[in-house]
Amino acid sequence: MRYFVEHMVVWFTGLSSAGKTTIAEGVEKELSRRGVRVQVLDGDQMRRNLCRDLGFSDEDRMENVRRLGVVASLLERNGITVLVAAISPFRQAREQVRKLCDAFSEVYVNAPLSVCEQRDPKGLYAKARRGELRSVTGIDSPYETPLEPEVECHTDHEDVAQSVNKVLLAIENARSAR
Amino acid sequence: MRYFVEHMVVWFTGLSSAGKTTIAEGVEKELSRRGVRVQVLDGDQMRRNLCRDLGFSDEDRMENVRRLGVVASLLERNGITVLVAAISPFRQAREQVRKLCDAFSEVYVNAPLSVCEQRDPKGLYAKARRGELRSVTGIDSPYETPLEPEVECHTDHEDVAQSVNKVLLAIENARSAR
Repeated sequence: MRYFVEHMVVWFTGLSSAGKTTIAEGVEKELSRRGVRVQVLDGDQMRRNLCRDLGFSDEDRMENVRRLGVVASLLERNGITVLVAAISPFRQAREQVRKLCDAFSEVYVNAPLSVCEQRDPKGLYAKARRGELRSVTGIDSPYETPLEPEVECHTDHEDVAQSVNKVLLAIENARSAR
Repeated sequence: MRYFVEHMVVWFTGLSSAGKTTIAEGVEKELSRRGVRVQVLDGDQMRRNLCRDLGFSDEDRMENVRRLGVVASLLERNGITVLVAAISPFRQAREQVRKLCDAFSEVYVNAPLSVCEQRDPKGLYAKARRGELRSVTGIDSPYETPLEPEVECHTDHEDVAQSVNKVLLAIENARSAR
């Protein structure tokens, strides 16, 4: 059966190394294959251009999410499905961007801190534990878990394909609910 | 004859009240009518959301243009023709955003300061002359005129339709040159 997903914003939130970008890229690949116009906004990448003036204070993290929300909603209004992968630690900021968007799904990429620390491809947690890095989410900066995310991926015991499929299913459901 | 304009970024630069937004909206209307997917990024509007943390220092003006450039190039990459209307007073900043974009046309919306001051719908120049407002471009903040803009609109002696047509022609030419 052929179908078209309408444009929407899918927001991946979770700790660093939880798997947000990996899942977003998996979803992007499958949506592209289906002919959906899709754009990933990766938090780390956006910090190198749009948000390069921002640090990691609570205030700057709020502002970072706010800007990503403005850009995501602009793209969405132009018919593009946007996959935002960014820690987005604060509930209030996530609720704000939800309101900016026409259709919005929150994906909680949930892995225990201990698992994220074991992965730690950027060496972020190791540095934080050695006291070389401050304001690391989950260590000395808060992460407010989503209360009612549209999707929850448990990347400690799901593989990437399972998580990707959960998100795709949520996108399909959001579409048919309209 | 029917034709499709490929996506590109058209950047309207000029003094406040020179007519940037008016021309951009005229171009938007005509492109939409032709089935081109188009988005206007208006400097004043963007200062109320994406750039609301910025003021009017030289540095903040550079950052403002930089951010608009990042967003414009993101939209362009997604097949959208982007019309940016923002004072963008600094040559260097304009050259930077040109490099960010795949296809770029600079439109110099040129009206003498005296004409802009007479229009002054926002009362900006009046306030500046009364000493109530600082860092107003053309008064106590510099405007670096474009050296080789792709288009120049003289809004003191052209009407809006003439200016709009000039820009449309430049877009058509840019397309056929590829």
